[in-house]
Amino acid sequence: MKIAVLGTGEVGRTLATRLAGLGHQVTIGSRTADNAQAAEWAAANGGAHGTFATAAAGAELVLNATAGEHALAALTAAGAQNLDGKTVIDVSNWLDFSAGFPPKVVVPDEGSLVEHLQAAFPGARFVKTLNTVNIKVMVSPQEVPGRHAIFVSADDAGAKAQAVELLRSFGWTDEQITDLGGLATARGTETYLNLWLLLYGKIGHGSFNISLVEGAVQGSAEAAVESATESTVEA
Amino acid sequence: MKIAVLGTGEVGRTLATRLAGLGHQVTIGSRTADNAQAAEWAAANGGAHGTFATAAAGAELVLNATAGEHALAALTAAGAQNLDGKTVIDVSNWLDFSAGFPPKVVVPDEGSLVEHLQAAFPGARFVKTLNTVNIKVMVSPQEVPGRHAIFVSADDAGAKAQAVELLRSFGWTDEQITDLGGLATARGTETYLNLWLLLYGKIGHGSFNISLVEGAVQGSAEAAVESATESTVEA
Repeated sequence: MKIAVLGTGEVGRTLATRLAGLGHQVTIGSRTADNAQAAEWAAANGGAHGTFATAAAGAELVLNATAGEHALAALTAAGAQNLDGKTVIDVSNWLDFSAGFPPKVVVPDEGSLVEHLQAAFPGARFVKTLNTVNIKVMVSPQEVPGRHAIFVSADDAGAKAQAVELLRSFGWTDEQITDLGGLATARGTETYLNLWLLLYGKIGHGSFNISLVEGAVQGSAEAAVESATESTVEA
Repeated sequence: MKIAVLGTGEVGRTLATRLAGLGHQVTIGSRTADNAQAAEWAAANGGAHGTFATAAAGAELVLNATAGEHALAALTAAGAQNLDGKTVIDVSNWLDFSAGFPPKVVVPDEGSLVEHLQAAFPGARFVKTLNTVNIKVMVSPQEVPGRHAIFVSADDAGAKAQAVELLRSFGWTDEQITDLGGLATARGTETYLNLWLLLYGKIGHGSFNISLVEGAVQGSAEAAVESATESTVEA
């Protein structure tokens, strides 16, 4: 598949490398056509590079891997006409480092960064995912053992299915992939970054994730028993 | 120990019952002296009840179990002179339900509700903990299997130690108790509620929690090997 990865930082380059390794035709997009990191990446990985607009224009699928505070500008440079009808997977987080570490998650008026982007580009089909783990875990979930979770938020069912397919190709299992619902649920995963950053500071590295652990619910079990009893009585 | 539990809702009553069961002298505090739920709780559990001020005045330890939006008013009614020098464990969350479910976490100017309360009552020693799980899990962590996490944030080391002792008495193990650092780290656990609420909606009950899962860090292992090698060479 022809995929545009917007952003030439560590996140963008690692995603692009993983996708190229999976056989996709990847173009890494940046602000300028002559970005040295993008050119180096393309030469080393058999990919292409270009402006945000060039990358998006030729792509069937777009990943936004820019820093969250630059995401709107990057997508604006990519051009609405180059995003219309396409799935745009937003892995970015908008962090304000002005008061030092840990930075603070910026919450736009729409409730989350990805809703802010969706409002600006109504023709694109946004998905939020992969923003709750570090880049190594994003593309190689087996870096962390066990049933840890990756969250997906999207309004468009087709776009969500495409994102889930991408997650599976990275090695995420259906047990790990946690569909939270519509795009507004990204408010939960984006603000979770506040906790992630503290855990990152405490643990000392980014090779970790959270796992959901459920307890037994006595109430439900009793309700099920009652229900079964009623059925028996009725029968 | 003489403990005041402020708030007569399900959280307050369940905490008060658990504490009374552990042998503490518990007074449950409410807005008015004649609160029916508080009187009923006291009669059933061998505890006492009274106004926020009465409860706080006689207590060595104070737990704030009011709804977050009423916490400042409740502590104001309790009175600064009745909180000064005492550990105040804040388990509350400030949620705005005005736009339906899921509600939105309200973040005061100070960055978190507990910092907002600390600023209003500088003589009290605030701790934030237990706000990331439902009330059953709070007092009975074994409701959820495995090594799931409970977070603690506090500036005062003595107050934090007292809160950790309380957690242990509820059954939380040292492996589960995760000290995030100063009171400002409550920004991470309070905003995590946005994700908790979505998971609650998805799972359908509150008997769950998150567990931290760490991966091996190759970089560190290599560094350790190098360091060991260097030591060998030096020796």
